[in-house]
Amino acid sequence: MQAAFGRADRELAAELFESVRKISAAPVGVTRPSYSDVETATMEILGQAARNAGLAVRRDAAANLVVELPSAPAQPATWIGSHLDSVPQGGNFDGLAGVIAGLLCLYKIRERKVDCARPLAVIGLRGEESAWFGKPYLGSYALLGKLTPHDLERKQRDSGRPLGEHMEKVGADVARIAAGEPLIDLRSVGAWLELHIEQGPIMVAREAPVGVVTGIRGMLRHVAAHCRGTAGHSGAVPRWLRHDAVFALAELLMRLDENWQALNSRGVDLVVTSGVVGTDPREHSVSRIPGDVQFSLEMRSQSLETLEAFYQLVLVECAGIERSRGVRFELGERVLSEPGLIDREWAARLEQACAALQVPHIDIPSGAGHDAAVFANHGIPAAMLFVRNDHGSHNPDENMDLDDFMMGVEVLYKAVTP
Amino acid sequence: MQAAFGRADRELAAELFESVRKISAAPVGVTRPSYSDVETATMEILGQAARNAGLAVRRDAAANLVVELPSAPAQPATWIGSHLDSVPQGGNFDGLAGVIAGLLCLYKIRERKVDCARPLAVIGLRGEESAWFGKPYLGSYALLGKLTPHDLERKQRDSGRPLGEHMEKVGADVARIAAGEPLIDLRSVGAWLELHIEQGPIMVAREAPVGVVTGIRGMLRHVAAHCRGTAGHSGAVPRWLRHDAVFALAELLMRLDENWQALNSRGVDLVVTSGVVGTDPREHSVSRIPGDVQFSLEMRSQSLETLEAFYQLVLVECAGIERSRGVRFELGERVLSEPGLIDREWAARLEQACAALQVPHIDIPSGAGHDAAVFANHGIPAAMLFVRNDHGSHNPDENMDLDDFMMGVEVLYKAVTP
Repeated sequence: MQAAFGRADRELAAELFESVRKISAAPVGVTRPSYSDVETATMEILGQAARNAGLAVRRDAAANLVVELPSAPAQPATWIGSHLDSVPQGGNFDGLAGVIAGLLCLYKIRERKVDCARPLAVIGLRGEESAWFGKPYLGSYALLGKLTPHDLERKQRDSGRPLGEHMEKVGADVARIAAGEPLIDLRSVGAWLELHIEQGPIMVAREAPVGVVTGIRGMLRHVAAHCRGTAGHSGAVPRWLRHDAVFALAELLMRLDENWQALNSRGVDLVVTSGVVGTDPREHSVSRIPGDVQFSLEMRSQSLETLEAFYQLVLVECAGIERSRGVRFELGERVLSEPGLIDREWAARLEQACAALQVPHIDIPSGAGHDAAVFANHGIPAAMLFVRNDHGSHNPDENMDLDDFMMGVEVLYKAVTP
Repeated sequence: MQAAFGRADRELAAELFESVRKISAAPVGVTRPSYSDVETATMEILGQAARNAGLAVRRDAAANLVVELPSAPAQPATWIGSHLDSVPQGGNFDGLAGVIAGLLCLYKIRERKVDCARPLAVIGLRGEESAWFGKPYLGSYALLGKLTPHDLERKQRDSGRPLGEHMEKVGADVARIAAGEPLIDLRSVGAWLELHIEQGPIMVAREAPVGVVTGIRGMLRHVAAHCRGTAGHSGAVPRWLRHDAVFALAELLMRLDENWQALNSRGVDLVVTSGVVGTDPREHSVSRIPGDVQFSLEMRSQSLETLEAFYQLVLVECAGIERSRGVRFELGERVLSEPGLIDREWAARLEQACAALQVPHIDIPSGAGHDAAVFANHGIPAAMLFVRNDHGSHNPDENMDLDDFMMGVEVLYKAVTP
């Protein structure tokens, strides 16, 4: 079958990626904080390119980017999109690839004057990465009226200022968001399609440039848990009188590691991470038994049942270590993102597009969460397409081949056009 | 046996502690910086009290306080003393108790006109706490000619000015100190006896008011070690493909914990601490597999052999975890402080004094370092007596009962008098 996209489209994609990379360059990789000026500047670059191509550009009430055909009819639209923010010192493709893929599809539809059965809108969401406010999917939650006043009080990791203030600054309608008012009519969204780089190593290992996602892992997390023990002179307190917070945390992680290994070996889908760990710089010392250590704990699985069962095990292990080591675990707020169900019809359409285009592809679960799961869990048919990517994501070394990306765009375009 | 010290001595001790506390009171606890005016004022309070009691008071060439009987004969003296400085917002007894104990002994010897076989000198050292210039034992090192020009350049944590300048200001002979010239004839010091509050919880737990120190723990430490793994998306990398730096460190600590426990149960003296632990705030995230974690590792033991043997075990465990988890440990600079050997004869004399006075006591290792270890490692017979103290030291909550202190003074007096 004839490819719809050619060398000029590939060059445009490369140019857009590069322009955004430049304005968000960090010491290594890129940094595009949620609800930041850099995120806004990214929208402006993509919006300007879209306007140049004769497309209509606007912001929705949650300050997300929306690009449409001029005079798009007011009927349920197929949304193609992803997010524009990144983790600190992350990679340029995570999120951004999905928005640029949507733009390329919309360009092509306008260029070829294709008459789609259903209008297409490209969405560039803000605030998907939890790194900034401790909670992910802020852009899509805001649209759905699912952010609470408590959420709006969440502090940005660097500025220390609340989410609501950051949202207001970029033009979101914080009053409506705080009121829990949905900012869109769910019936106006026919489907959510999201192209994203794979964030794990599976597609590289299996030599597949494109993956059709079968399900999205949910997660259960504690962002800022503490283990509290008793500080003391590192030389003067014998082992039997210690309540060392760091050793207690190490024991918790090793107990969880053993259980995790056992579950994995029985085929249970689960990953466990403690990405943020630290003793308190205001009081820690090489010669002081740590009386306190802060840590994050996150479990992910495609099965809500697995998450809840493992969580019970976390509580049991904490209680055991509290007894044996005389420490106290304070896990703090529990955050749950439910696993996301992929729409079977849309997944089948993506499969068929791969087949028709003879693009090598695999079926693959999404290990990471995505806005797609948020929309799916609110009744919007959602599907995802992965593009092969080396070195994972959330790090500056992510490595997507632009040829693989264009194959993904081709599949997406095929799936949304007659 | 009749006690040598009575109510009046106890009141004098209380008065001296209180006078010094008053001039060094901090928002919480006391602050007596090394080589500061507060340290000098402390000397003046003690010196004036000594002069009132008819004792001779002077400063040595390193500006430490020396109190002697008038017309003390020029023969090897038994030194009783400790240090006068404190950590920032520390406790009043850490250090000061040992100097006041010495003074009480000397008062009593003069009052009773006791003819000691060997003259007694009470020493109030400066600069023992490493909190101020990043290096401990400055007062005793200066006396022994062991401070380097590099040491004299060390900056005070608040003033930012070098140690040499601070020393000069309080009257030390910085030229001789900089030249590495010993300021005392080692042969003139017959022994170093130091009473000190216990800095751990053992004596409280064992209900012993007095402890005879069996040895001063040395230490082996890495201040800023790293475990390097591979960062990745916390949801998208399966367990078998992870190189998680935090889980690897947790495994190291648990392996060391198991070995430590086994060694302790066989009576081997050892404590292990990882007081400073942290993922890198510039790149860590709840949703990121940690690719790097920094940690300190410190082992203390009275036995150099134990330290070195356990250190080999650390290296073996690191190598094992590197293989199994695909991470790399970079331990960085290794710092060794050798254990201080306690003089057996003097320790036996302290034990005998406890027995004669029927003072309940235990044998106890000193977990913290002390000037006693510095003198011991330079060939001066050294011994230490601990006094029970609740809540550890280096904090404002240290809590020594004055009755326990007077029991310690009684033991010390008994050991240095016929």
